[in-house]
Amino acid sequence: MELSEHLDLPALRGSINEALSAFIAADNHYLTQIGPELEPVAAALKEFLLQSGKRFRPLFASVGYLGTGSPLSPELFSALSSVELIHVCALIHDDVMDASDTRRGAPAIHKQFENLHQSKKLSGSSAQFGIASAILLGDLALVWASKMLHESKIPAEQIIAALPIFDEMEVELMAGQYLDIYEQALASESVERSLKVARYKSGKYSIERPLHFGAAIANKNPERFYPIYSAYGLPLGEAFQLRDDLLGVFGEPAETGKPAGDDLREGKRTVLMALTHERSNESQRKTIKELLGKPDLSLDEVNELRGIIIDTGARDHLEGLISTLTQEAVSAIDNPLITSHVQSLLHQMATIATQRKI
Amino acid sequence: MELSEHLDLPALRGSINEALSAFIAADNHYLTQIGPELEPVAAALKEFLLQSGKRFRPLFASVGYLGTGSPLSPELFSALSSVELIHVCALIHDDVMDASDTRRGAPAIHKQFENLHQSKKLSGSSAQFGIASAILLGDLALVWASKMLHESKIPAEQIIAALPIFDEMEVELMAGQYLDIYEQALASESVERSLKVARYKSGKYSIERPLHFGAAIANKNPERFYPIYSAYGLPLGEAFQLRDDLLGVFGEPAETGKPAGDDLREGKRTVLMALTHERSNESQRKTIKELLGKPDLSLDEVNELRGIIIDTGARDHLEGLISTLTQEAVSAIDNPLITSHVQSLLHQMATIATQRKI
Repeated sequence: MELSEHLDLPALRGSINEALSAFIAADNHYLTQIGPELEPVAAALKEFLLQSGKRFRPLFASVGYLGTGSPLSPELFSALSSVELIHVCALIHDDVMDASDTRRGAPAIHKQFENLHQSKKLSGSSAQFGIASAILLGDLALVWASKMLHESKIPAEQIIAALPIFDEMEVELMAGQYLDIYEQALASESVERSLKVARYKSGKYSIERPLHFGAAIANKNPERFYPIYSAYGLPLGEAFQLRDDLLGVFGEPAETGKPAGDDLREGKRTVLMALTHERSNESQRKTIKELLGKPDLSLDEVNELRGIIIDTGARDHLEGLISTLTQEAVSAIDNPLITSHVQSLLHQMATIATQRKI
Repeated sequence: MELSEHLDLPALRGSINEALSAFIAADNHYLTQIGPELEPVAAALKEFLLQSGKRFRPLFASVGYLGTGSPLSPELFSALSSVELIHVCALIHDDVMDASDTRRGAPAIHKQFENLHQSKKLSGSSAQFGIASAILLGDLALVWASKMLHESKIPAEQIIAALPIFDEMEVELMAGQYLDIYEQALASESVERSLKVARYKSGKYSIERPLHFGAAIANKNPERFYPIYSAYGLPLGEAFQLRDDLLGVFGEPAETGKPAGDDLREGKRTVLMALTHERSNESQRKTIKELLGKPDLSLDEVNELRGIIIDTGARDHLEGLISTLTQEAVSAIDNPLITSHVQSLLHQMATIATQRKI
């Protein structure tokens, strides 16, 4: 193990990936011993977990841990990386909830199992089999998140210290997801409400809580670090979600793994769309009403909506907001309690989280 | 707290219900503080959790704990009752997976939220909103199961001792559920395969693992008790699932809370149907093929299928199998390690689990 002071983000990511690979190999073996019928389940979860490499949440957990001045070890990476499996559950279930058939340029899990059902010419509805499988795979990922933490072989008192934050992170995730689907169903145009959803759905769950979780695992007066991590994590989490809003509209399919303008086709109620609505004139509102959420939206229509978002200044305003929030986040860690090494890692993470292309 | 030796099943059930009520009250409060939009989520989970009173799994956990000779306390009931929330997740997600709209004579959770969407005239598909909500409520119940165990205030070493069994129980549940939906999709007629699904779906998860979990929480050489509890729990769990098969076909709607012959309408591949298939003649098979899984099955058609199940002797055979398995279970606890009080409780539980009407 390298000295913690020399760990950079790629090294952290490497250790996180190793921990996840080791866990999934062992647990896949356990699963397929129950029955060979579970092989597609094991394979799909493994591929889903290992094909993505951003690892935002385990990275924040690792940096949150490092911030307390404690040394890392393979066991700690196992404990800290467990949060990635919560995210796997969130993504798999999210795609079912949104009826979104593509993830990272490939079929979503429910679609994969729908295809399996068709190719094996199984009985009953393929779509229903796909949905049922994806619900179970998401559930299993959530169970595995806990299992990975519990089995990490770090001292019992560190596990016990981390459980309350781990639980709270999961409750906030599910609450945030419900706020999100409810917001979509309200077809709300409120900027304030959209920001609240962004805060719960992403702000707390993606950044603040993983940082807290890392500090809790270190178990050395973590409450010293919680307010600093919140002051950094909450605005950055919002900025992260706002970048997501922009990518959902302006991102290239090659980068996002989703069709161009997918959020427009889904009619997602985002802060970006709430801002656009607030700033649009009557004729622009008419176009939005006509096109937003149209399932067979053409590329021309996507571009028409993109034009309105740009013309109203909503896009620029959001870019400004992302900058302000990121600046706010970054100044919060200018604190003598945080070593310069960890400050530098948190700076880099802020950049990655808000300037990313996916 | 009464002396453990005087605890009967109603007293245990009372303490379990108290623990669940206290937990849900506190966590509902937490949830609605995040946002008033979450009130329907909190209310639906509370009603779902508190309206049923069987409490099989917490009862087995409590008896498994008592079997080790340790004394019970309110904190222990909090820890032991957490398994009920795993079951809440399983039922909510199961109804989505089966597209089963009724549970305990009332709308299933996804149907409740579909109705909410309609009554509030929200935007988008009501059915999709119902499914998304039910996925999240099930997820939240699963998260709450862990949270209830973690927050129970029993000593940390007892929580740590119980986590591996808790995790394994959840993995086996999800694996068993997948085996079940896959079995349905295979439209299998194999008695052997159906029995395997029954074993995982219900045998391990409903009885054996809750007993192990109780012993693990006591944390006094629980491995002394595991083989005895397995020898009791596995056959009894199968018998429990076989009783479910019979109720799904012959149960009265007033008792089961589901329409008459619901499993026939759903075309469920159960041990009962596999046995019937094995024993049926050509003309009976033709009728089964025609009617099993017909969505608009009439009561006359339900009765026609019931007649075949009875005429082939499959029903009697299953009743015989339930008796044999129950006998096998009960003789396994005739062991000096288990006090006569706990033996008596396990006898009573065996009767309730296999002679129940719901």
